[in-house]
Amino acid sequence: MTAGPILDIEALGRRAEAMIRALAAISAEEGRITRLYLTPEHRRAADLVASWMQAAGLVVSEDALGTVRGRLPAEAERQGANGARRLLLGSHIDTVIDAGAYDGNLGVVAGILAAEHIARSRGAMPFGIDVLAFGDEEGSRFPATLLCSGAVAGHFDPGALAVESVDGITLEAALRAYGGDPGAIAQAACDPAEAAAYVEVHIEQGPVLEAEGEALGVVTAIAGQTRLSVTVVGEAGHAGTVPMALRRDALAASAEIMGLVEAIGRDNAADFTVATVGKLTLSPGASNVIPARVVFTVDLRSQTDTVREAALTRLRDGVEAIAARRRVTAWMERVHEVGATACDAGLQAGLGAAIEAGGGRALRLASGAGHDGQAMGRLCPIAMLFVRCRGGVSHNPAEFVSTADMGRAVAALIRFVEGFGG
Amino acid sequence: MTAGPILDIEALGRRAEAMIRALAAISAEEGRITRLYLTPEHRRAADLVASWMQAAGLVVSEDALGTVRGRLPAEAERQGANGARRLLLGSHIDTVIDAGAYDGNLGVVAGILAAEHIARSRGAMPFGIDVLAFGDEEGSRFPATLLCSGAVAGHFDPGALAVESVDGITLEAALRAYGGDPGAIAQAACDPAEAAAYVEVHIEQGPVLEAEGEALGVVTAIAGQTRLSVTVVGEAGHAGTVPMALRRDALAASAEIMGLVEAIGRDNAADFTVATVGKLTLSPGASNVIPARVVFTVDLRSQTDTVREAALTRLRDGVEAIAARRRVTAWMERVHEVGATACDAGLQAGLGAAIEAGGGRALRLASGAGHDGQAMGRLCPIAMLFVRCRGGVSHNPAEFVSTADMGRAVAALIRFVEGFGG
Repeated sequence: MTAGPILDIEALGRRAEAMIRALAAISAEEGRITRLYLTPEHRRAADLVASWMQAAGLVVSEDALGTVRGRLPAEAERQGANGARRLLLGSHIDTVIDAGAYDGNLGVVAGILAAEHIARSRGAMPFGIDVLAFGDEEGSRFPATLLCSGAVAGHFDPGALAVESVDGITLEAALRAYGGDPGAIAQAACDPAEAAAYVEVHIEQGPVLEAEGEALGVVTAIAGQTRLSVTVVGEAGHAGTVPMALRRDALAASAEIMGLVEAIGRDNAADFTVATVGKLTLSPGASNVIPARVVFTVDLRSQTDTVREAALTRLRDGVEAIAARRRVTAWMERVHEVGATACDAGLQAGLGAAIEAGGGRALRLASGAGHDGQAMGRLCPIAMLFVRCRGGVSHNPAEFVSTADMGRAVAALIRFVEGFGG
Repeated sequence: MTAGPILDIEALGRRAEAMIRALAAISAEEGRITRLYLTPEHRRAADLVASWMQAAGLVVSEDALGTVRGRLPAEAERQGANGARRLLLGSHIDTVIDAGAYDGNLGVVAGILAAEHIARSRGAMPFGIDVLAFGDEEGSRFPATLLCSGAVAGHFDPGALAVESVDGITLEAALRAYGGDPGAIAQAACDPAEAAAYVEVHIEQGPVLEAEGEALGVVTAIAGQTRLSVTVVGEAGHAGTVPMALRRDALAASAEIMGLVEAIGRDNAADFTVATVGKLTLSPGASNVIPARVVFTVDLRSQTDTVREAALTRLRDGVEAIAARRRVTAWMERVHEVGATACDAGLQAGLGAAIEAGGGRALRLASGAGHDGQAMGRLCPIAMLFVRCRGGVSHNPAEFVSTADMGRAVAALIRFVEGFGG
């Protein structure tokens, strides 16, 4: 890492805070933050981001899906060469409904501030820097997500143009209304030969950094996820007259399975595995009737796909054994599945060094939530820098990151870029 | 036991079956059986029962709450004496909504057929026999139950006259419309000095006799019952981002408590203890959110009050320990509680001998459901004879008792009466 000038973390934090506030003011709803993909609010936020990029000295463009790109050319490019390697920084500027201010937006702001710092302090690096502001990470308007980052990674499914929003507008129609060009989406793709890496700053959306007393952390992987629906069918009966030994109680069986789900999560904690039963319905559902049928969800995530698969096997075997022993019928259905996206070891080391240069411990943690990095991982090596958020709260107006922590995050990203090998 | 003539079980079964059919035809609803307390249907059923009692040679009366009584005087009474001891036989003729045909009704039918047999074969016994047809065991119309048997036992709370039915009619108004006299309820009470015992034939409403391959069983006690509401409060969180070690998962804690509830039931099976979680609600209830709050019911029954109390203590201690270890808050509220009513050992022996005389095994089992015997237990020693029902199903049109088993039950009751010491 080439040591740059001493960074004014407080000033960087205040800059980030002001930009976050300005974006948070752009909403479809008075008094709360709601900014969905391809809406007028998205347009205004994209234009604001573009103006910041321009002021930072970046070359601004917008691709066919609305991704705003601010480019700091590489040293060689300034002398007329083409095809320089580029470091991609960014995140998304869409939000959930009634969102917090930091999710996504902080990564775009940090990218702009880092590129601006490089532009002002050095003019250029041996590699180009692209700051990307994606538009549809949350999937709150259309039943599809990561279309913008997917297109940049060169993986856009044209079938997605036909998906409809909750209010019945197709993605294609919304895109045209926004000013995008459905016929030019292929040109949004970045040349894999030029994409050196994608690095995203993001709030943790979890409680680990706060519990550890650290502002920043290095993400090891974006967890893979399996969502299951588990159904247990036993037999209803009178709660007073059926002896314990003659029961086929669907809820008692489910309670045992839920214990196994939790044990599977705990036993694989080293791989940042989590397992959750979040929803459960039972019938008939009367205090004096033995439950006949229970349906519940299992959400299983891990940074390691083989660990997740082994966990699923253990769960399936356990469910079978529990069902056989209790003379109930039980089955699991996979509702959703996505593999893990590992973060590049070299990039992790670079981010770790940048955190340590700022006095931090460079904790490693997985991301249990999804991010644009999952799409970008199909293009190039990726990495993520997590920022502490209060109480682990996200997707909620109570979402909060301190100004100081935002300053630390921007400073760490600057140091990372300065130390990046291209 | 004085050996009577050989009983024609098939004929007794056919008689019982015909009477059960005749009662089942009396309903407020076409195509299903619904006969609530103090309704025109109750009136018709009471009149039919009274006509059968009369035909059987019993002296018929109806008390102020509508209980129909058919009396076979004792030998001494026939010679003018007063105050003879009386054996009380009976059950109830009200039903739940969309009921089966046998619950309650079979006990009244069996009592009439037994008294008729005694009247015809012997004229009288040294003790009087009262057959009682109570009217409100199910509590399906008014939020009160066992008022009829309670009044016979000498325990009627005048405050009950003010309770309102679902359609807003007070018990007092309904009683007057039926022809009952609220001012004469005290006279319904049986003199404790005259009440030798109360014996009730009833369908099991559970699967034990069927599983054991026996038509009849001797009830040891009507179980005591505690109904609890358990609330567990943890903390909501993102199912992907909160590590297992940092969770305060209200559902995972509840699953562990449910395992304890089941273990408590199983470990006390010798006392016919059963423990059931029948109803559970959780919030927020999304597949990707750790549950913050769970409320569930516990229904705990046992033939032995000290066992039930010890089970409650074990549960309370367990809930506290589980909550402390998992850093959740949990509490239990007692919603309902009623003590056990033991069946008299001598009466149990008499019923057991009567079953064995018919070739059965005289199995002992507790009643997990409530019965008029609970009220009658405040007046005199009680006992119950259970009759096998298919699949343990009750309170349901699928409720079924075979004609042969009804014949066996009536025959056993006759033998019991013939052997009763007075």
